Amino acid sequence: MAEILRAPKGLDGVAVADTTIAKSDADGTLTYRGYAIKDLFESSTFEESTYLILYGRLPTKGELEEFEAKLKRYSMVPHNVYELVKAIPNEAHQMDVLRTAVSGLGATEGGISSEEQELSIIAQMPTLVANCYRLNRGMEPAEPDPSLSLSANYLHMLTGKKPSDFEAWSFERMLILYLEHDLNASAFTVRVVASTLADIYSACTAGLAALKGPLHGGANEAAMQMLLKIGTAANARPYVQEALAKREKIMGFGHRVYKTVDPRSQLAKKLLRELLEKQGKGLETYKLCEAVESAVWESKRLPSNVDFYAAPIFMTLGIPIETFTPIFASSRIVGWVAHYNEQLMDNRIYRPDATYIGNKGLNYVPLDAR
Amino acid sequence: MAEILRAPKGLDGVAVADTTIAKSDADGTLTYRGYAIKDLFESSTFEESTYLILYGRLPTKGELEEFEAKLKRYSMVPHNVYELVKAIPNEAHQMDVLRTAVSGLGATEGGISSEEQELSIIAQMPTLVANCYRLNRGMEPAEPDPSLSLSANYLHMLTGKKPSDFEAWSFERMLILYLEHDLNASAFTVRVVASTLADIYSACTAGLAALKGPLHGGANEAAMQMLLKIGTAANARPYVQEALAKREKIMGFGHRVYKTVDPRSQLAKKLLRELLEKQGKGLETYKLCEAVESAVWESKRLPSNVDFYAAPIFMTLGIPIETFTPIFASSRIVGWVAHYNEQLMDNRIYRPDATYIGNKGLNYVPLDAR
Repeated sequence: MAEILRAPKGLDGVAVADTTIAKSDADGTLTYRGYAIKDLFESSTFEESTYLILYGRLPTKGELEEFEAKLKRYSMVPHNVYELVKAIPNEAHQMDVLRTAVSGLGATEGGISSEEQELSIIAQMPTLVANCYRLNRGMEPAEPDPSLSLSANYLHMLTGKKPSDFEAWSFERMLILYLEHDLNASAFTVRVVASTLADIYSACTAGLAALKGPLHGGANEAAMQMLLKIGTAANARPYVQEALAKREKIMGFGHRVYKTVDPRSQLAKKLLRELLEKQGKGLETYKLCEAVESAVWESKRLPSNVDFYAAPIFMTLGIPIETFTPIFASSRIVGWVAHYNEQLMDNRIYRPDATYIGNKGLNYVPLDAR
Repeated sequence: MAEILRAPKGLDGVAVADTTIAKSDADGTLTYRGYAIKDLFESSTFEESTYLILYGRLPTKGELEEFEAKLKRYSMVPHNVYELVKAIPNEAHQMDVLRTAVSGLGATEGGISSEEQELSIIAQMPTLVANCYRLNRGMEPAEPDPSLSLSANYLHMLTGKKPSDFEAWSFERMLILYLEHDLNASAFTVRVVASTLADIYSACTAGLAALKGPLHGGANEAAMQMLLKIGTAANARPYVQEALAKREKIMGFGHRVYKTVDPRSQLAKKLLRELLEKQGKGLETYKLCEAVESAVWESKRLPSNVDFYAAPIFMTLGIPIETFTPIFASSRIVGWVAHYNEQLMDNRIYRPDATYIGNKGLNYVPLDAR
């Protein structure tokens, strides 16, 4: 009989696959396909970074133009998916709505080719996120405006207001930071589903299911709720101390990989400051965040993670809180598609073992004799 | 830095959790909570075995009656979920429709308590499977008949004909065989999603996504298509030899755990024979299956698995092929709920590592300089 290996809980520290997509390091670095996140944050676009993650290299000008045109062409969502979303009650959680919509998209677009499916699911996500929210609030669906970039369009559909160039640029920076982060719970879920040879919609629906969990994608919304509750920088230290005394989790802090600094958090922090300065409405939100960050670091030595600064940036951009996790999903789906394809390149179905510690050899007793 | 362990592909032979739910062994045994599958197959009911898997022990008479009453009470599906299903195009794959319906159910029933959610998702699955098919084929949804047992009701809704006692009993046997099978890809997917603290609907939606894959739940439908193609016992050997020569997979054979015999397949084989004898329409289907089984064993030493005999049993019962995998899902969801709860009893989020083998330290080159 083959030896059964016992893995640490949560597969912590266990490499389950080879990857060339992204690499995060405990020292606070993150690369997509070998490029530092800082460089991509400063110089790239959402479309270009998406191309990089999907195809493993930066596009030429011609390739990028063609890719952008394809994403625009695919960004419309079939009308029946909106009908489906309308059948969901208004008080529903936006991640439940989005998961159902993506699953319904899979039931609708099963006929198109695999490569079309992969690009169209990426292109349709911004339209879906904005319109799941709009329909669920009784508004008409917004239509993508082909004259705008993907991120400007997305922000426009989310807020109903045409964003300034800097606002659109800021929003795009956050989408770039959320694109991919190796084998977290949702990307791993996508790979397990891919390993059964299920289609990309099934895999992404499962990824959305995992991302809904408060220990995973739900953190940016929870961080925003916490910041709103704390209210002012002066309140930060007492709040954090009380929460820690009650053994409550401080949302937006700590990370399985990053122990001292999450590079995405640092980039987002700087961006929040710039955004507030441009808006000229004062730096209260920034000071609040910084005060919470200091208080948590002093007490627990936990660094803020990307969700902690994403939340106030989205808020400052006028985006509804309920869509924060769906927005995370709409960017991360790019990483999921890359993981899906990487899994299939060297596939074996995930079928782990469990250590059986239950009853053995029980005799069935008929109901009347129990 | 902590040592990174490298797991075999597909986590083959790696125990990722403790479990007390089920135990399958290479020697061809399977137990649910310590009871042999053969005993449960011969003497138990779907409701009783479901109770056993959920709560870890056989119910008393009073407990079982209360449990059956609850399942009946919960078996109605909210009307808006049918509206949602109607928005899906008619040619859709039934697993896509069911996955979307269960996700939509989650978006609808978020307000009820967790225990209610778990029992109602189990109770609603037969209604959903039958009515996703019916609605997708332009028929009106069927309503559960409270005077019938769960399995008789289910078969009635699937075929539109009131089943004989033996037909209902046979169908129930197959539901019992499909209830649970430790950490296969779908149960593992459910546990990964549970580990993020996502709700039971998210976890089951992800389980359905995994079960759609042709390497997993899709096998019973594929086995049926293959049997229909072979047609007669005389054709079995030439078909199998030709398929193997072309390196095609023979559907319904082989199993990661069972190397010589799948105990469920043996029980189902006997049941198929009894069912055909009762119907008095001859044993052609049985002889066809047996001939394929012999041919595959001679050439490849692969045993038939549960899907291979489930397919002709469902066919003989007059069930539409498109619902075979959804039926598997409607039973297996019981195991998923048990795994969901077991995961949460000792939870750590699944966050494995990957071995990074990609590019490092690349310099970002601006678009115009590429």
